[in-house]
Amino acid sequence: MTENVADSGVGSDAVGLVSWRDGSARQAIVEFVDRVRGSAGTPPVPIEERIAVFDNDGTLWCEKPMPIQLDFILRRFAEMVAADESLRDRQPWKATVEHDYGWFSQLLTDHYGGDDSQVKVLLGGVLAAYAGVTVEEFEKKSDTFLRTARHPTLDRGYLECGYRPMIELLAYLAANGFANYIASGGGRDFMRPVTNELYGVPRERVIGSSTTLSYSGDVPGGSITHLPAPEFLDDGPEKPIRIWSRVGRRPLVAGGNSNGDSEMLEFTRHTDLPTLRLLILHDDPDREFGYTSGAERVLESAHREGWTVVSMKDDWTTVF
Amino acid sequence: MTENVADSGVGSDAVGLVSWRDGSARQAIVEFVDRVRGSAGTPPVPIEERIAVFDNDGTLWCEKPMPIQLDFILRRFAEMVAADESLRDRQPWKATVEHDYGWFSQLLTDHYGGDDSQVKVLLGGVLAAYAGVTVEEFEKKSDTFLRTARHPTLDRGYLECGYRPMIELLAYLAANGFANYIASGGGRDFMRPVTNELYGVPRERVIGSSTTLSYSGDVPGGSITHLPAPEFLDDGPEKPIRIWSRVGRRPLVAGGNSNGDSEMLEFTRHTDLPTLRLLILHDDPDREFGYTSGAERVLESAHREGWTVVSMKDDWTTVF
Repeated sequence: MTENVADSGVGSDAVGLVSWRDGSARQAIVEFVDRVRGSAGTPPVPIEERIAVFDNDGTLWCEKPMPIQLDFILRRFAEMVAADESLRDRQPWKATVEHDYGWFSQLLTDHYGGDDSQVKVLLGGVLAAYAGVTVEEFEKKSDTFLRTARHPTLDRGYLECGYRPMIELLAYLAANGFANYIASGGGRDFMRPVTNELYGVPRERVIGSSTTLSYSGDVPGGSITHLPAPEFLDDGPEKPIRIWSRVGRRPLVAGGNSNGDSEMLEFTRHTDLPTLRLLILHDDPDREFGYTSGAERVLESAHREGWTVVSMKDDWTTVF
Repeated sequence: MTENVADSGVGSDAVGLVSWRDGSARQAIVEFVDRVRGSAGTPPVPIEERIAVFDNDGTLWCEKPMPIQLDFILRRFAEMVAADESLRDRQPWKATVEHDYGWFSQLLTDHYGGDDSQVKVLLGGVLAAYAGVTVEEFEKKSDTFLRTARHPTLDRGYLECGYRPMIELLAYLAANGFANYIASGGGRDFMRPVTNELYGVPRERVIGSSTTLSYSGDVPGGSITHLPAPEFLDDGPEKPIRIWSRVGRRPLVAGGNSNGDSEMLEFTRHTDLPTLRLLILHDDPDREFGYTSGAERVLESAHREGWTVVSMKDDWTTVF
């Protein structure tokens, strides 16, 4: 199965990385791909080993002022309160109707600090929001939302919130034989309707958090519906487990931006093959958002392990 | 993404089905593929929709006198008894050392009849057998076993127990743009080391039963180990759920042979695209094994729904 891509006409055309400034991050990427192709004097890496995994929120698209999926959920919460006023005094519906974004922001801070008590309260709401909905209906809702809703501050639709340099990187890797996967804490079925269009990542390569599903043969062809129970929260140590379960290999490339990506980056290790670990640093408040909250631990690991830190401010000529 | 394969040079060369006798089953396959390719006057089916799913035990390879994975497990049980004599009086080790195959055969009969009490006893032993083993170590054991152990009665190695006509069918579908998946009740990580070689199905397209896994960052690169807890038993209604979770689409093609494949076959339904549902009938005791036990319900569905029943005796010129 070993195919020498260096000789196969598949191009390692680094000029595709047009939004990357010449610097250490771009150089690390190009040198890594050269090694994978076998154009650095070493044997090419077999095609089937060319696996790349990327977090989504804050790595491939914008996650501030709130994760895009949270906006989707909040709109559903508002619908639910309109249908049932008794929800108004219970979290997470209370914070929703009172526009108490501090509650949501605090629960993310708590989560990265290791306290998931409020995450569970939010999750309870999320699970109630789509209980009994079929996977096809859910997909329609998510698809419509992502194609019509707009980012609250960036003056662009959500489908234009992907980072252009990362989209170029995905295309560069794909052109060099990589299978790119999304390994996100966000919902698998939330992202699937748009990942191919947005990132060139087909739905079968989307790994993410998931809800427990139920099959019923009640209608011709059967139906799969959401149960009000989580299946996997694809974050932290669950990421390498879900990657293994889906792919059956350790990746060569991993990209992330937060503590929840630490284990995935750590797992991206081979003793006999080149690897590339990328950590996106949100240091550009002018063009995007400036924050390292929730990334303290992974930044320490990056510096200790020599992973490639990508400065949005210095390494990218444009963000979107 | 719609690619007209009829025009792309990829062949629908039915002569690849050399081990299929001319008859209604072969004809159903060829006519289906012609429709998918758009050579029957209808528009070609978009490549990304060309998803095929196959059960493994009894559909792609032999499952009698016992599933191949059961032989693997029994050998491990014998090792465990040698290391700990106290297991000798407990099931499933007791049946193993006493060569009481009736116990194993009865639990499968009970399972297809809806009683999983003894399946759970066996599963407890299976889970204990590899608790604490890393996924890489497990893969080595499975790989070695499958490449060295021989079928107890057929005078062939397990790697030669795949059904030749089905291997030809997988190749024919792949040549016509299909992504073939294995959706088996057998263990995902048990099959993965050999599916590409045996069936041309790469490891990321193997869906199967799985053990709960645990990630630890204790060693560089981290390690993933088996916990003594099931994750999914990929059988019955769980099959469509696992297919959806992995692929995110309904298949066009499904192949199975037992009641546990009923829901997967049922789920393989589109209102606007052609589908092919195959049920392998084990009616050839001379060349393989003759049995319909555990397939009563799915055979009824096949006749009622018009699925294609494949007679091993009449439709195949050779089995292996």
